[in-house]
Amino acid sequence: MEDRRSEIVAAEEELIEKAKKDGVETVWDRKAKMKVQCGFGLAGVCCRNCAMGPCRVSPVPGKGVSRGICGATADVIVARNFARMCAAGAAAHSDHGRSICLYLENASRDGQINIRDEKKLAAVAKRFGIETEGRDIYDVAHDLAAATLNEYGKPHGNLTLPTALPKKRREVWDRLGVTPRAIDKDIVSIMHSTHIGCSGDAENILKMSMRASLGDGWGGSYIATELSDILFTTPSEVETTANLGVLEENSVNVILHGHEPVLSEAVVAAAEDPELIALAKAQGADGINLCGMCCTGNEIALRHGIKMAGNFLQQELAVVTGAVEALIVDVQCIMPSLAKLSQSYHTKFITTSPKAKITDSLYIEFDEDNAYECAKQILKEAILNYKNRDREKVLIPHEKCDAVVGFSTEAIVDTLDKVVNSNIDQLQTVKPLADVILSGVIRGAAAFVGCNNPKVEHDGPIVKMIKYLIAHDVIVVVTGCAAHAAAKAGLLLKEAKEIAGPGLKKVCDLLDIPPVLHQGSCVDISRNLQLVGELANYLKLDISDLPVVGAAPEWMSEKAVAIGMYVVGSGIDAWLGVVPPVTGGPFVADYLLNKMEDDYGSKFFVEPDPDKAAEQMLQRIESKRKKLNI
Amino acid sequence: MEDRRSEIVAAEEELIEKAKKDGVETVWDRKAKMKVQCGFGLAGVCCRNCAMGPCRVSPVPGKGVSRGICGATADVIVARNFARMCAAGAAAHSDHGRSICLYLENASRDGQINIRDEKKLAAVAKRFGIETEGRDIYDVAHDLAAATLNEYGKPHGNLTLPTALPKKRREVWDRLGVTPRAIDKDIVSIMHSTHIGCSGDAENILKMSMRASLGDGWGGSYIATELSDILFTTPSEVETTANLGVLEENSVNVILHGHEPVLSEAVVAAAEDPELIALAKAQGADGINLCGMCCTGNEIALRHGIKMAGNFLQQELAVVTGAVEALIVDVQCIMPSLAKLSQSYHTKFITTSPKAKITDSLYIEFDEDNAYECAKQILKEAILNYKNRDREKVLIPHEKCDAVVGFSTEAIVDTLDKVVNSNIDQLQTVKPLADVILSGVIRGAAAFVGCNNPKVEHDGPIVKMIKYLIAHDVIVVVTGCAAHAAAKAGLLLKEAKEIAGPGLKKVCDLLDIPPVLHQGSCVDISRNLQLVGELANYLKLDISDLPVVGAAPEWMSEKAVAIGMYVVGSGIDAWLGVVPPVTGGPFVADYLLNKMEDDYGSKFFVEPDPDKAAEQMLQRIESKRKKLNI
Repeated sequence: MEDRRSEIVAAEEELIEKAKKDGVETVWDRKAKMKVQCGFGLAGVCCRNCAMGPCRVSPVPGKGVSRGICGATADVIVARNFARMCAAGAAAHSDHGRSICLYLENASRDGQINIRDEKKLAAVAKRFGIETEGRDIYDVAHDLAAATLNEYGKPHGNLTLPTALPKKRREVWDRLGVTPRAIDKDIVSIMHSTHIGCSGDAENILKMSMRASLGDGWGGSYIATELSDILFTTPSEVETTANLGVLEENSVNVILHGHEPVLSEAVVAAAEDPELIALAKAQGADGINLCGMCCTGNEIALRHGIKMAGNFLQQELAVVTGAVEALIVDVQCIMPSLAKLSQSYHTKFITTSPKAKITDSLYIEFDEDNAYECAKQILKEAILNYKNRDREKVLIPHEKCDAVVGFSTEAIVDTLDKVVNSNIDQLQTVKPLADVILSGVIRGAAAFVGCNNPKVEHDGPIVKMIKYLIAHDVIVVVTGCAAHAAAKAGLLLKEAKEIAGPGLKKVCDLLDIPPVLHQGSCVDISRNLQLVGELANYLKLDISDLPVVGAAPEWMSEKAVAIGMYVVGSGIDAWLGVVPPVTGGPFVADYLLNKMEDDYGSKFFVEPDPDKAAEQMLQRIESKRKKLNI
Repeated sequence: MEDRRSEIVAAEEELIEKAKKDGVETVWDRKAKMKVQCGFGLAGVCCRNCAMGPCRVSPVPGKGVSRGICGATADVIVARNFARMCAAGAAAHSDHGRSICLYLENASRDGQINIRDEKKLAAVAKRFGIETEGRDIYDVAHDLAAATLNEYGKPHGNLTLPTALPKKRREVWDRLGVTPRAIDKDIVSIMHSTHIGCSGDAENILKMSMRASLGDGWGGSYIATELSDILFTTPSEVETTANLGVLEENSVNVILHGHEPVLSEAVVAAAEDPELIALAKAQGADGINLCGMCCTGNEIALRHGIKMAGNFLQQELAVVTGAVEALIVDVQCIMPSLAKLSQSYHTKFITTSPKAKITDSLYIEFDEDNAYECAKQILKEAILNYKNRDREKVLIPHEKCDAVVGFSTEAIVDTLDKVVNSNIDQLQTVKPLADVILSGVIRGAAAFVGCNNPKVEHDGPIVKMIKYLIAHDVIVVVTGCAAHAAAKAGLLLKEAKEIAGPGLKKVCDLLDIPPVLHQGSCVDISRNLQLVGELANYLKLDISDLPVVGAAPEWMSEKAVAIGMYVVGSGIDAWLGVVPPVTGGPFVADYLLNKMEDDYGSKFFVEPDPDKAAEQMLQRIESKRKKLNI
């Protein structure tokens, strides 16, 4: 297996050069212009939660101003800021989940919104206590929609937790007082308690942060994944191609970017419409070349094998190619810079969600009740824009790479089942996986999640760390922007087993899988949780006992903060490659990096050096194995 | 009527001097230590919403860095920060309301939680479509609790809006797309849409801010007031005394500070317990001297005539008197500095809410199911602490002032009714008030709300502006910290009519009321909304047509930002005396200060000079009168 990194970097640099030549600005230019970033903000000790401030306290204990005007200490300020990041992250994921619930509510046999996975519908309905026997699946679906929507706003009780959650883990949460309640309520609680003059205790604020984050991972995100599978099918192995080289010289290039599958599924369907294909051909194009970007890219690659054009740091470069007729977006991680940038090219930048309007974009509100027609209307904008492409301004990089994606937890269990022939038909039965881990053929598992960040070499740390771990017989699962990084680097190819250690290679051979399994978008980290939860349940252990680790080497978003919290709160150590804004709070930093382990059996590691981080992850896996005597 | 300001200021300065002598720090010391505050933060152009940043863009268009790393403009950054302030403010108020809903849910005839205002229960139940005829009031109460809790989390539809809301106003909201949905959902929506890569359109973000804020004013806060009245009685005229001079040399001084009436009502009841009074006497004290502070002070003054010890900037000074045995707090506006400060005195700083734990306080979680016993336990801590008071460290200022409080909307209408003898028995009928305004005897009404802020002379602008307006025949209503300021200055005395204009004086004479009416705590701004809404309904006008204005001259909290938004969104011009962090966003600032009027018929005014602000308010009242041809 060849090393593709240098080609990937060269292709990207070529586009960055083109941007400079074209006189347009990219994220790296803006990063450079920002020069020295605010030290108070970086340390988390800047407070803007009331108009007595803004206050900046010293990030160094015993030196300079130690308290805000209200008397908040550095730790309280850091904790409050951190909590609000968790609140925003949990809100983003969970509101995505809510969209899917509302979509499911409108499902009907004769309408445009249909149930595609009846088996998963039955399984999920069951966990919500909904009767399925002898009932019309659409009645079940509507009950499920009501039940899941209720999880956001119910005034009493706790979240209806997935069966994958080990009992022992739930007991940890109950003991610490962090078991989630209603999803929205826990987010709103943070906003209340971080208001001036409420919580002035960092530990208490971190617990609220955890509660809302767990409500994301095991609630909002989990529901998003489950219901997306029910509506759009549960992913299974499928081939795709990754990187900006998937754009085509003679096709109408359309990039779907954002997060929620509702819009993108409709566009995927509409792109097959003969009328539109004919229209594209009438414009002189070979056809419509639909590609996905960021998490939308993951969603539609997983379910349809749609090409993956790139991750977060490539959204502007896609426009810079000069070959994109339309960039169609919904919510989250959409750079507002795209509005101005697309005006320097012929690209139509089409926003569709009332939750994420962007000034100077073309706004076509996505009409869920009329999804197909609306998607057609949006695609027409792209097709009719083909004639405006300036051939002299086009630079499509050659770099692209095939990949195998679609490893939902169900798909993994199915694969294991077929090959090992263990005659299991329940998701709960992850015996073969447990066996290879217990025997040491595979040392453990690592999840790579999260974003890109211009503070870090694009995709570099993710790829480096994954390679190290698979070489040491650690199986890897990827989601989000990290999944794109892995795909581009060829790590989602089955041939990548050649750079895996002997044990992992054997497993890849046996199961005919890549050593790095693509599990989906960032809400699909719920699939990671489900997998490790089922594994722990099977082994009668807590998740924190397992030799599994997680990493977000290039994290950037508040969603990643919520993810980090719920991953660690679920018992999985998490490595961050970008320093979170907590260094100014000695208690907070010490809690997250050390004491947290006493509470959760897991903690955060902050290690910007990818080599060191990967080594630490492996060491931690081995030390967990040792504790288990395996 | 004498001018008390100089005595008030002198008394406060004496305590600040004492603090210096005692070697303890107060809010003013911390304000001074903060030196120059961050210009980016003050202008609202600092963004910490993702870890690519923090970003600081130039607050001056065309100069310096114009975009954050994601490409967000100054306006987008300013709008996002502003929206999160609204989200936090709405969360605080609405979560307070939720506590009262949960309390009502546990009401029972034989238990500790009882219905005290059956008439209001019936009225509020009716607006939620709950049958009352022939039903047990506790059954009605439980249905009402369920209905109000449902307003927080319902997945569909809009807020159940009070009947006081004029139809025309609702139409404005519907047209602009800002009609609130579920209270929590609208807050969570802001957190989602202000996440990196979501809304990049300042106008859109401001609409979301408005929607959540209206959900506060006409939802969370409104419900808080209604249900508090049902549970603890609807306020009516009652006498009290204000300022720190209410502390007593020979009593156990207990200050209740915070917001939610649930804790304070229980403590008020328990303070009458003969066992506790005997215990206090056994400690050598004359008895228990219960006082309230900030909004808790307003809540218990309104309903029980309990003394008002002071507002936000006096909480530390209360401890500095050396005469306070316990400062008992629940949520919001509690300076975390109190923990350290109280350790320099004998004062027990008792926190009670899991929503607002504070490091180094004495935490006794308030047990709502056992409210009376829990309140007794807390009071015992205070009583047993009496012996630790160091008489040499005591300085109780002489300054205090009587006040008449308790002017709920119902009380105002009742007063009008009795005197004018108009034979009206419905709240809706505010004819006499309308008559005096239409005739010009009273020129209009002004609401003074909000906080203190050490950026501003304590209470100075509030008192100055109120005096100017009543002198010009504008009747004034007060809530929150502004209400304390008015009370201390003698403006809530009936004799204050002597400094009112001739028209207002005539009305005060006729009705035997002060020219400044105390309406309650900060959630009770809902009473202001109710009053102006009913007035508009009676006159078949929109609220924005009425000669009514609002001001928060010394605002500080995020709650005040949400209040400002819902007040202006309701059609009432609002004056801010502290510049909000929006100056760096040219569109945002222009919208709030100018264009907003096109949408809502009302807008913000930022005027730190109280003389100018008061003049502007009067001018605006007169121009609204002119438009009405009255």
